[in-house]
Amino acid sequence: MPVLIGGQWRAAKNPAGTFSAVDPSSRAPLDDRYPVSGIEDVELACQAAQEAVATLRSLPKENVARFLDDYAARIESGADALVELAARETALPVSPRLRSVELPRTTNQLRQAAAAVRDRSWCRATIDSKAGIRSLHAPLGAAVVVFGPNNFPFAFNSVAGGDFVAAIAAGNPVIGKANTGHPGTSKLLAECALAAARAAGLPAAMVQLIYRTAPEVGFKLVSHPLVAATGFTGSKSAGLKLKEAAERAGKPIYLEMSSVNPLFLLPGALQERLPALAKELYDSCSLGAGQFCTRPGLTVLVADQRADAFLAAASTLFQEGAPGTLLGASGLEAIGTGIETLIANGAEIVTGGRPVDGPRYGFANTLLRVTGDKFLAQPQALQTEAFGSVNLVVLAKDVAQMLAIAAHLEGNLTGSVYSAMQGGGEDDEIYARLAPVLRQKVGRLLNDKMPTGVAVSPAMNHGGPYPATGHPGFTAVGVPASLIRFTALHCYDNVRAHRLPEELQNKNPTGKMWRLIDGEWSQRDLTPT
Amino acid sequence: MPVLIGGQWRAAKNPAGTFSAVDPSSRAPLDDRYPVSGIEDVELACQAAQEAVATLRSLPKENVARFLDDYAARIESGADALVELAARETALPVSPRLRSVELPRTTNQLRQAAAAVRDRSWCRATIDSKAGIRSLHAPLGAAVVVFGPNNFPFAFNSVAGGDFVAAIAAGNPVIGKANTGHPGTSKLLAECALAAARAAGLPAAMVQLIYRTAPEVGFKLVSHPLVAATGFTGSKSAGLKLKEAAERAGKPIYLEMSSVNPLFLLPGALQERLPALAKELYDSCSLGAGQFCTRPGLTVLVADQRADAFLAAASTLFQEGAPGTLLGASGLEAIGTGIETLIANGAEIVTGGRPVDGPRYGFANTLLRVTGDKFLAQPQALQTEAFGSVNLVVLAKDVAQMLAIAAHLEGNLTGSVYSAMQGGGEDDEIYARLAPVLRQKVGRLLNDKMPTGVAVSPAMNHGGPYPATGHPGFTAVGVPASLIRFTALHCYDNVRAHRLPEELQNKNPTGKMWRLIDGEWSQRDLTPT
Repeated sequence: MPVLIGGQWRAAKNPAGTFSAVDPSSRAPLDDRYPVSGIEDVELACQAAQEAVATLRSLPKENVARFLDDYAARIESGADALVELAARETALPVSPRLRSVELPRTTNQLRQAAAAVRDRSWCRATIDSKAGIRSLHAPLGAAVVVFGPNNFPFAFNSVAGGDFVAAIAAGNPVIGKANTGHPGTSKLLAECALAAARAAGLPAAMVQLIYRTAPEVGFKLVSHPLVAATGFTGSKSAGLKLKEAAERAGKPIYLEMSSVNPLFLLPGALQERLPALAKELYDSCSLGAGQFCTRPGLTVLVADQRADAFLAAASTLFQEGAPGTLLGASGLEAIGTGIETLIANGAEIVTGGRPVDGPRYGFANTLLRVTGDKFLAQPQALQTEAFGSVNLVVLAKDVAQMLAIAAHLEGNLTGSVYSAMQGGGEDDEIYARLAPVLRQKVGRLLNDKMPTGVAVSPAMNHGGPYPATGHPGFTAVGVPASLIRFTALHCYDNVRAHRLPEELQNKNPTGKMWRLIDGEWSQRDLTPT
Repeated sequence: MPVLIGGQWRAAKNPAGTFSAVDPSSRAPLDDRYPVSGIEDVELACQAAQEAVATLRSLPKENVARFLDDYAARIESGADALVELAARETALPVSPRLRSVELPRTTNQLRQAAAAVRDRSWCRATIDSKAGIRSLHAPLGAAVVVFGPNNFPFAFNSVAGGDFVAAIAAGNPVIGKANTGHPGTSKLLAECALAAARAAGLPAAMVQLIYRTAPEVGFKLVSHPLVAATGFTGSKSAGLKLKEAAERAGKPIYLEMSSVNPLFLLPGALQERLPALAKELYDSCSLGAGQFCTRPGLTVLVADQRADAFLAAASTLFQEGAPGTLLGASGLEAIGTGIETLIANGAEIVTGGRPVDGPRYGFANTLLRVTGDKFLAQPQALQTEAFGSVNLVVLAKDVAQMLAIAAHLEGNLTGSVYSAMQGGGEDDEIYARLAPVLRQKVGRLLNDKMPTGVAVSPAMNHGGPYPATGHPGFTAVGVPASLIRFTALHCYDNVRAHRLPEELQNKNPTGKMWRLIDGEWSQRDLTPT
């Protein structure tokens, strides 16, 4: 199949080979073959993006907004084909998952970004009228590379998902590196994107797509002089290598890599609603066969009779639940390896622990247990991510040990605390000691709620401390905050009024844009004194 | 002299040696000897900072504001001693520079930060009332390390300057690594800081100070598990090594490293006000003996008679101006090496080019010239920074070549364009082509103004693309924006109302804090519906 470079679907130049997607439900390779791009495709894409940057400067921002809206509409028009192919490449259920959840999430995200482009408040225009200094966040002036993960063929797709919309809405062209699990879905999306770019009068190289590269070519891509920044969602091992390559070249790279998303179930909560908690855990952990970045992988309890009862209830649910189909062979293998690491470091299987029989990629819902003592002896190894419907229950001998476990957590995307709803005196006291420790370890702190389900909200943080991501200050989900990652701060000092960008001129360009004028957020025009 | 660790002035543990500052006006070593700290001091400082973090959590933010205000007052009370010692260690003039410019800048910065702490708007509290999700920027939860540069003993000092106040105001304890050029000034400042921390009821380890380390110990410091982030201002060679060490450990590091701060003097401007421009250039370039990060080091003109006249006028000024005293031996050597590189790559000396006679560290004001052709043949080498009163004039053969030169610039802190004030038709046309190119290369774009003089303004960007800094999205100067570098984004999802931080509760904690509530910036309370 062709790559999309400079607005043309064309054969890869001197590809390093080809690959095909695999149907995870049968392990059968699908018919279409996709190229492994070499350095020539990378060079051509970077050059084309650079031309797009130059063209973009003189285009109205409305064109970008129109593109995002129209792209959403085209995804909806093409939903049948998209959902069908995505289901074949990923084995994710057509309904409700792909059609009713992920596709609307994707189009909603595109439309929120379109609204942000029109609103313009996202760029944080700041005016110091006395000093004659004005600044805003502006496009980076070169391509943004987006690596999409395997687990969301639409919502995190390299040419349609969160990083993509953030980079585009901030005004940058995107070079998408498809996830190799769903190249066909990525191609269908890129076709919609290209048509939308043409219709909106954007440069055709606004969206480009390659499918796969050798690792060295990937390192060259993220460190290329004509690439400004990279967004990556995927495995920690791949992410850390790209991080090193990008950072050595002085390029920002935003990574979302790994997270065990710890849950703390306090004694009062177990006392009050044990069966509901076991059900919530199972539902969240097994959602999408457990292949969510925010899937809860670690549950911490104080060891007592209630904990035993909880384990028993959860075990039944994990055992009785039908295992979902995994996205591919590497995920299946990684779950097995992850569980082996957990066991080698003292965890015991409560239920599950084996791949499912039959041709599909699947792994039994798996619950493990380990004592708090053992966890604290090997805290790092026992936070190994097993990216599937797998949960390790840590039985702390007391509240103090529960706190020590929290203190030994690595950086995570999320952390949840369940406490008694009614008169939970003891829980409240534990919460007051636990929350400050857990707070430092996670990007999003939840109460009485599972972490799966990442709302596209301006207040969302889908991010967190290293190694969950590469920087604790940014979110990958949420409009407009996620746009800021793909911008440069541009200051104008004593620049003549008519040469300022619209957003920094005295007149508010939309009449509604929020600007920080002399320390006050305001939608007003600036009246020169 | 002792280091300051955990609130105690005490001898360094197993130091790797000692050093003393040097009087740059005589090259004579000063009496006091300071330790080169080993890994034990680093470990103790990190541990002490961690205890400070825990204590800080339960303290009112007002204590931090009081500390900043009181520290400013103590600097003013101790101004005589501070200015005297700083002048001895740096040879910077007592007046106006140290006493009337830099010291007030420093105390102003501390007080602006105190106001930001009280105002709280800096943390960008964001509330999505429908989704039940709220977020803000919060302290990092571990120490921030600050490396201060040699050229601003007060305003960028590791225990008093811009990075310091940003990290402290954001709620983090600071481990200062003094610049080795002015250890005594740093010690005096740290004494004031410690007294202010005690008076404000802050943990004594809020401010710690070491003076020097071997490089490997510095790498361990920035990558230490108990260090959250680093701010560095200094040379590119040292900065890049620290960057690698910090980033390999997943730690953010904010670097301000190098910049030639290009000026573009358009033909109409030269026609209109040539003598004034030559004077402005000389004054800005020679300020502080040219040892400002924003010192203009590169001037681009179109070669014609006016350019020749400009060179002649500037040459007279550079030749007649008395060379300032440099900060130290390494700076003197670096200027010589830098100029050698420029000459080896085609530049010619117009005036200057040699160290001054006599015992002090000094280098003649130096003007060089090179053709646009030669510049474009070796654009990287001809952007070598010579950190002193040195300017390379590039004579472009025409406007097109001037634009090509702009396109070959590396990332810079600033870029200035001078154009005709009156009816500058040709200049306006050139500006329209030049500005978009230059814009991508600089953090701050100026019109008709020299880049030295970095206002502490909310709209300032003292930052820019790599290699001027390590990330194009952040400023090192300006309150409140510079605080964000030293924060983590903390999201609260479904967290019970009384457990939210004050800034995210329904009631506006100050009555005046700006918050982004459901897409609108507002100072109101949130009324639950």
